Amino acid sequence: MASFFEADSLAVIGASADPLKQGGRPVGNSRQAGFGGKIYPINPRADIVQGVKAYPSLDAVDAPVESAFIALPAPAIEQAVLDCADKGVKAATVISAGFAETGRAGRRRQSRIVDIARAAGMRLIGPNCMGLMNTHRKLYATFLGIFRDADEVPPPPGPLSLISQSGAVGAHIYVLAQQRGVGLAKWVTTGNQCDVQVADCMAYMATDAETKVITVYMEGCGDAESFKYALDLARRNRKPVIILKVGSSDVGGRATLSHTGSLAGSDAAFDGLCAQYGVYRARDIGELLDVATACMAGIYPMRKAVGLVTISGGMGALMADRADEMGLAVPPLPGSAQKELLEHFPFGATRNPVDPTALWSQDMTTLSHGLEVLLGAGKHEVVVVFASTIGTMEMQIERFRSLMPQIRQKNPDRVIILSMVTPPEVKTALEADGFLVYEEASRAMEVAAALIGFAPMIHGKNKVPKTPRVAKKLTIRPDGAMSEPAAMDILEAAGIPFVRRRLATSASGAAAAAAKLGFPAVLKIASPDIAHKSEIHGVVVNLASRKETSAAFKAVTGRAKRKARRARIEGALVAPMISDGVECIIGSSLDPGLGPVIMFGMGGIYVEVYKDVAFRVAPFGPAVALDMIREIKGYPILTGARGGPAADIAALAKALSRLSVFAAANAETIQGIDINPFRVLAKGKGALGLDALIQPVG
Amino acid sequence: MASFFEADSLAVIGASADPLKQGGRPVGNSRQAGFGGKIYPINPRADIVQGVKAYPSLDAVDAPVESAFIALPAPAIEQAVLDCADKGVKAATVISAGFAETGRAGRRRQSRIVDIARAAGMRLIGPNCMGLMNTHRKLYATFLGIFRDADEVPPPPGPLSLISQSGAVGAHIYVLAQQRGVGLAKWVTTGNQCDVQVADCMAYMATDAETKVITVYMEGCGDAESFKYALDLARRNRKPVIILKVGSSDVGGRATLSHTGSLAGSDAAFDGLCAQYGVYRARDIGELLDVATACMAGIYPMRKAVGLVTISGGMGALMADRADEMGLAVPPLPGSAQKELLEHFPFGATRNPVDPTALWSQDMTTLSHGLEVLLGAGKHEVVVVFASTIGTMEMQIERFRSLMPQIRQKNPDRVIILSMVTPPEVKTALEADGFLVYEEASRAMEVAAALIGFAPMIHGKNKVPKTPRVAKKLTIRPDGAMSEPAAMDILEAAGIPFVRRRLATSASGAAAAAAKLGFPAVLKIASPDIAHKSEIHGVVVNLASRKETSAAFKAVTGRAKRKARRARIEGALVAPMISDGVECIIGSSLDPGLGPVIMFGMGGIYVEVYKDVAFRVAPFGPAVALDMIREIKGYPILTGARGGPAADIAALAKALSRLSVFAAANAETIQGIDINPFRVLAKGKGALGLDALIQPVG
Repeated sequence: MASFFEADSLAVIGASADPLKQGGRPVGNSRQAGFGGKIYPINPRADIVQGVKAYPSLDAVDAPVESAFIALPAPAIEQAVLDCADKGVKAATVISAGFAETGRAGRRRQSRIVDIARAAGMRLIGPNCMGLMNTHRKLYATFLGIFRDADEVPPPPGPLSLISQSGAVGAHIYVLAQQRGVGLAKWVTTGNQCDVQVADCMAYMATDAETKVITVYMEGCGDAESFKYALDLARRNRKPVIILKVGSSDVGGRATLSHTGSLAGSDAAFDGLCAQYGVYRARDIGELLDVATACMAGIYPMRKAVGLVTISGGMGALMADRADEMGLAVPPLPGSAQKELLEHFPFGATRNPVDPTALWSQDMTTLSHGLEVLLGAGKHEVVVVFASTIGTMEMQIERFRSLMPQIRQKNPDRVIILSMVTPPEVKTALEADGFLVYEEASRAMEVAAALIGFAPMIHGKNKVPKTPRVAKKLTIRPDGAMSEPAAMDILEAAGIPFVRRRLATSASGAAAAAAKLGFPAVLKIASPDIAHKSEIHGVVVNLASRKETSAAFKAVTGRAKRKARRARIEGALVAPMISDGVECIIGSSLDPGLGPVIMFGMGGIYVEVYKDVAFRVAPFGPAVALDMIREIKGYPILTGARGGPAADIAALAKALSRLSVFAAANAETIQGIDINPFRVLAKGKGALGLDALIQPVG
Repeated sequence: MASFFEADSLAVIGASADPLKQGGRPVGNSRQAGFGGKIYPINPRADIVQGVKAYPSLDAVDAPVESAFIALPAPAIEQAVLDCADKGVKAATVISAGFAETGRAGRRRQSRIVDIARAAGMRLIGPNCMGLMNTHRKLYATFLGIFRDADEVPPPPGPLSLISQSGAVGAHIYVLAQQRGVGLAKWVTTGNQCDVQVADCMAYMATDAETKVITVYMEGCGDAESFKYALDLARRNRKPVIILKVGSSDVGGRATLSHTGSLAGSDAAFDGLCAQYGVYRARDIGELLDVATACMAGIYPMRKAVGLVTISGGMGALMADRADEMGLAVPPLPGSAQKELLEHFPFGATRNPVDPTALWSQDMTTLSHGLEVLLGAGKHEVVVVFASTIGTMEMQIERFRSLMPQIRQKNPDRVIILSMVTPPEVKTALEADGFLVYEEASRAMEVAAALIGFAPMIHGKNKVPKTPRVAKKLTIRPDGAMSEPAAMDILEAAGIPFVRRRLATSASGAAAAAAKLGFPAVLKIASPDIAHKSEIHGVVVNLASRKETSAAFKAVTGRAKRKARRARIEGALVAPMISDGVECIIGSSLDPGLGPVIMFGMGGIYVEVYKDVAFRVAPFGPAVALDMIREIKGYPILTGARGGPAADIAALAKALSRLSVFAAANAETIQGIDINPFRVLAKGKGALGLDALIQPVG
């Protein structure tokens, strides 16, 4: 990957003399920026391209070429990639459209260039992308317009890197970042991702010394293992990752499909992945940039609490409302500090929010004092100051800027966020003073919450949870469909507890089994061909005696034979009725993007209605399982906060972890697993699966 | 109220020669704006104030004075209000702080001026506010700075009116509206609301010909009846109302309290009120203004569907994701239209979102054609066009503006929203062309959803539901606590169905009652002093025989006597066990802001965990009850969509409506009612309360 971003030499194949054309921009951009390496324009019809010596072919270059930027129409790409391979190019970028995104012929064309590159050990970015840049190295292998005129100096580098699957979105974010004066480190668009994926770029940024904050726009995950590896690397290097991923709706998924030919994974599973790796998932581009720029300051407060200073009581209330929604406390100032503040503004609010009332307009020190006392007396690591339209009033903003930066300097370890309306130049000046500035108060609160959210990852107080080793012996190869007793046996062998049970093959056998296991009992048809047992009335509950059990066996097997004539009937499963504990559901499914993902949720009809479920990507240990359990709204039901006894959460976590290990080990053969209901008994009593379904792949 | 906004004459008491002072601004503002009425500056130490003849006292004015603006310190206010009353002033505005918001003495001071005004038939706005304006009449009875220099013309009037309880928030929104070029009709801040409340202003705007869109910032509702009346008036006059209300968090509530001395009502109940009256509830100021400006165009599409055109496939997917979240469809174009589009951009997306791909940058007509075909072929009443950073590129925006406005003109009945990055002047020009312009794509989608949300109210397809008449005879005066049998009888008399039951006063009586009502039975302690029966084990379920029932009576009354020694025991309530149907909860509570509000939700422990409840303000008819029932997430459980039978939703709606009528009739005496569980049986079988609690006021 370094050969893309740190190349000593860049060939531009299809280089144009017109600096505005796609084949002209990389030459012009890199030259005007002052790229220190060699540029080799390749153009059979020109000796000089934009003042640089050109070559008729790549072969004609009399030196090694590390990286190539190919700006040719789709039909000419294959030969160009071959030429690169022959020349020993290490990294080639193909911008042209007309590949996998256009259908079958395009897909074939794309796989041919991948084959060539792989055989030669060359990496490929694109096709159907806008290229990349490394601002520190002044390398602009992109047809994005960087300069408006010939005198312009290149934009200053910064700590933020962007990886965008879409070229158009990458360009859009680039322009917004420039508007905001946000310096970029690396910028790359991956397009059709025929070889290099978002994950490869993320892994590179994770170890890149110049990248402090990683932002990503993506549609599909690409290879799940590489993606998880990259996220883990970023986490280990304590770099915040902010991702805008589209495709949560069906239509969104469709749009994505027609755009880059990639399949987007399930959205809830992706949310689970973000929770697992401490990723911030942004909902739009403004949020992505606002959170990313806040991270550039590098302060991540550990306490989920915020101090508020406001020149409008109403806006103080609004900020407190938003803080509450985001799970942030607004803890009051100590009494002594409140007393001190009352001396400055006897009719103001001193608790938190601190509000000097209209006094600030006559005496700005009431506002600065409010902030100073809050920072001095409170343990508030993040403070949001609502300063309304002060930024638009010449005298007021002058006074504001004469008082506030000192406070900022005296408290270098705090985050101070200003919510105010300002002209861009005032905003820039305040940002240079070390403040974060957002117009909307609700955005200021979101940013505060995001910084606090990154803190555990940054400060390393939460150990990266160990993934359990996958035991080889758990790997199974389900040969077609599997009956419930078979599924239960396999999952039990994998370490997931199930109810005691017997497979009965006769009415008398069923009666004896029920008597042995204890009444009341339940009897269920056992057949690999009947997945939905209740549809054929294949389940009888509340059996109170041998006689009832025996009758139930006959009734159930009889119905199965009548209603599902071709089904192989193994007999009936007999088990004691269990109605203790909390009814949950646990399961796994093969996400198209992320591989096996594990789901946990509250059971019953409510799981469907309230969708109160959490996902994590398999495999994981009990610590991740605990996070997942705590994430659902119904968690208080498990802790007994709603009147019931506390449930055995440790047993639940263990079962989830074991299920995840099993699902990961069998990702090739198992499409999905449902253990529903999975009953979590009272603390110390364990948990039990009452039902199991294993669905093989295909 | 007209005397505030349409005054022919305005006295400024405490008028200052300094046009920047609070007492100077109303004179200067109104003069520079060209107010057509009379201005009477009152100042005992000046003959002329800002070029206007001044008077030593109000009494000295030799003509009637319709309205007064009082800019004096708090201690002088009482005398000034007295002077106004003597002069026959109809409308007085008091801006000074130092009243109810400062504590007890202030509250007394405030109630004295109210008494004076009421006795004289004069209305009061304030105190602790910033006054008001009527831009059409060029009346600026406010100390808000309107003009920056002496040559400035007044801002052009527009259709948007703002009512803000907070002066600071009112000023903030005023500045933002000016920045965005949004014309205001009326602007008023109500401060402590000693007399005129938000509701009074809203009722005025609802009938004001110049106000088309009403925006509100508020903390508490004030008088609930007036507030509901104003909302109803706005609805009847088909004016969209957009409200930003703070105080949803405890801390928010506290901040509000210290700010204006008003108590904020429950947030979920306020959401219910908004749903009831078709109000859009904004979450921050940007959203309030964005939705309000969109309404100014006056187009409210009925179909919950949106067309998308984009020059970035990724952003098309993002918009589709957001649409899906907001319940908007993204229906595909007909095949013929898709075919037509393919001729323009063979590799683009034609389904919806429509995406010409990068072709647009060479040929902008691909984009304009995409929009034209979408508008022509689709039934899309709202279209969102993502145009990225076109607005920042000189040649591109020129071409864009040469093509798009024609399409806008050809489709005057459609809403066309642009999501793009533009300099302010381009934005203004595009808005003048009739487009709505928002930078963020997610905001564009929110605005589309908001306009669609207003449509039923605007187009009058949904009749304003009739409120049932309140029957006098239902009014009860609970004299202290009430036992469950008493509560059930009263609620049953109010028209709410309950389970068949008997109050037994002896063990043998209980046994006989159970035998008569049918086994299995339930027996519950009956006492006005035991609200939580299960806490003293005062409930026994699943009684199968006379013997068991008799024993249960003895056990339950015995336990009650031991565990609640002072409790008056009426006996025990016997009823058949009902486990059919869907378990719900219905109830009422006295909201501090809104009066009696009715709650409906799914029952069981889930009501607490998932808070899946809906509120409406009482009283209301079955149509509103149906809306409320459909609002909760668990609604599919009632329709039988989750496998169960469809429930008797009509019976549930009737019960909710009757409960609302009863709660409204007894708002003076009843604090709250819980009917939990309320079981809704299968369609046609009705519904039954199984438990009832009436909590009297105090």
